Amino acid sequence: MDGQKIIAEELVKGIAPNVDAEDLVNNKRKVFLFGSPSYTNIGDQAIAYAEEKFIRNHFPYYEYIEIMDYATDEGIEFVKKIIKENDIVCFTGGGNLGSLYLDIEEDRRKVISAFKDYKTISFPQSVHFEDTEEGRLEKKKSQDAYHQNPNLTLVARESQTFDRLKGTFDSNVIYTPDMVLSLMIKPRNIQRGGVLFVLREDKEKVTDEGFVSELMRWAGKTTSVERTDTVLRDIDTIDYKDREKYFLKMLDRIGSSKLVITDRLHAMIFSIITKTPCLVFGNSYGKAKHSYRDWLEELNFIEYTDEQDIDELERMIDRLLKAEPNDIDLRNDFKPLEDFFKDDQV
Amino acid sequence: MDGQKIIAEELVKGIAPNVDAEDLVNNKRKVFLFGSPSYTNIGDQAIAYAEEKFIRNHFPYYEYIEIMDYATDEGIEFVKKIIKENDIVCFTGGGNLGSLYLDIEEDRRKVISAFKDYKTISFPQSVHFEDTEEGRLEKKKSQDAYHQNPNLTLVARESQTFDRLKGTFDSNVIYTPDMVLSLMIKPRNIQRGGVLFVLREDKEKVTDEGFVSELMRWAGKTTSVERTDTVLRDIDTIDYKDREKYFLKMLDRIGSSKLVITDRLHAMIFSIITKTPCLVFGNSYGKAKHSYRDWLEELNFIEYTDEQDIDELERMIDRLLKAEPNDIDLRNDFKPLEDFFKDDQV
Repeated sequence: MDGQKIIAEELVKGIAPNVDAEDLVNNKRKVFLFGSPSYTNIGDQAIAYAEEKFIRNHFPYYEYIEIMDYATDEGIEFVKKIIKENDIVCFTGGGNLGSLYLDIEEDRRKVISAFKDYKTISFPQSVHFEDTEEGRLEKKKSQDAYHQNPNLTLVARESQTFDRLKGTFDSNVIYTPDMVLSLMIKPRNIQRGGVLFVLREDKEKVTDEGFVSELMRWAGKTTSVERTDTVLRDIDTIDYKDREKYFLKMLDRIGSSKLVITDRLHAMIFSIITKTPCLVFGNSYGKAKHSYRDWLEELNFIEYTDEQDIDELERMIDRLLKAEPNDIDLRNDFKPLEDFFKDDQV
Repeated sequence: MDGQKIIAEELVKGIAPNVDAEDLVNNKRKVFLFGSPSYTNIGDQAIAYAEEKFIRNHFPYYEYIEIMDYATDEGIEFVKKIIKENDIVCFTGGGNLGSLYLDIEEDRRKVISAFKDYKTISFPQSVHFEDTEEGRLEKKKSQDAYHQNPNLTLVARESQTFDRLKGTFDSNVIYTPDMVLSLMIKPRNIQRGGVLFVLREDKEKVTDEGFVSELMRWAGKTTSVERTDTVLRDIDTIDYKDREKYFLKMLDRIGSSKLVITDRLHAMIFSIITKTPCLVFGNSYGKAKHSYRDWLEELNFIEYTDEQDIDELERMIDRLLKAEPNDIDLRNDFKPLEDFFKDDQV
């Protein structure tokens, strides 16, 4: 096929924002990332950021090409025209495999079934299909779509998800931490102050607002208190070119706090990167809890809890604030993912 | 200062080829790399490639700006106009600190003395001042230049160099492996064949040509034999934008061989990355030998030798070819360099 012609005719916004048009038709093996997030959840933005670093650091001889979420349909048609036998198709990671975020799950189904003849992977995910009639129906739809693709690997980012994926799909399942934990960022040294509450305002929220108010009042007695979320509300979209900027801004926000209190998995992970003491509460289906238990329990400045007694929490927070933040090394835990992408052509 | 005006007036070729012009005047802390190589030594190209990855992976909140070697003088004048108090000045690593490559040593002196009021670093180097009158004169010139800068850190990539730097300069000296060993590239899986001799044709060469011919004849009895060098002769320059391409091409060349025989430090390092059995001979002042002894001795498919007896070498090569290539983990050995760049502003 005439590469130049394809490019001129078909390159709509959101297809390949991260490479030059000519790179789409060079002779490198291609890795396509579908579902690259344009929405303002900085956790999911950080995941896409980490996915790109992961591929570029380990496999610079591949051409890594992103397709933004809003261009999924056009992207599928476009990639079908340029994809070659040994190329790899990816769908971005996160906490959206299941029945809670159907727009994303529908895109994942489309991509997985459209590229059934190609090596395909869903980057590290948490899975949750609701135990309702609708949840079961959606599970069936995902099974039907995924099972069309015999070359599919699913990646679980906690053991709970690993078991669920194994129990739900016939696909190959592997197990690694969340992609953001593969980043090697050394934190900036910013003056710290106050307590930052990073709290969900979505359907996964289970932290009681009365309890939150009580906790904020308690914290406010001795220091300044702010409340925010890792989902930005003041902008509508984050496109590829602005991803790093917003991610680093959020890291600075977390890293300039004395303490973070959150029910967001990625507020916990951003606290780990910035060495910020952090107390973590759960969401509706335990993704922060299980990531903590599976990978992060040895961190002395991060604690997961379901406790709601203020005195007990105060003792916990005291311990976190006094700890000299330690390191854990998860680098080798990404080896299953490295092995997946390893060049198997001879 | 008016950033836009500066940019329009002064941006000559070779200044900041790796960033957009507007990034030169954003409010990020800047890291300037001087001496970015345009010459065709793929070892030095790989070093610059690894330096950029190192900064971008660990410190994405810095703006990393390269100045090509041929633009050193204009680059110094330009950087003087935009540099701010907490910015960092770097000179690229390699095996050229000393009296052997005076054009580079002169550039390093200029950069180190021009930015004496700024945090300054010379990336991991091997050092060799010849023990001649001229060598001692050049050493004195370097001492005079380096000692103007009280904020200078020198990085040694082997213990021999560490001792020499400590004995020669009053500057802070730290110790890490060669930058290329910080890369995380997973090797391509390419069909292997033949023995590749990668041999110097420069003033550091000590391997006797008679011995080389004997060795090549011996190898040629059972397999195909080729001879090359990590310095390309068929092109004149490699500019920033082509660096990765030529580096990966050399990796493929090494990685498609059954065995590499070399007196080049970076042919050894490229063999490590690509898991290619490799027998290493010395150069004039022991840089491959000392890197091997200090960091790499545990690798079962790489061996350094001064042996010239063919029977002995045959036994050695047999062992290398039979080994299932093992891994060593040098990631933590770069910590002194991470600590240097760590944001120390509060």
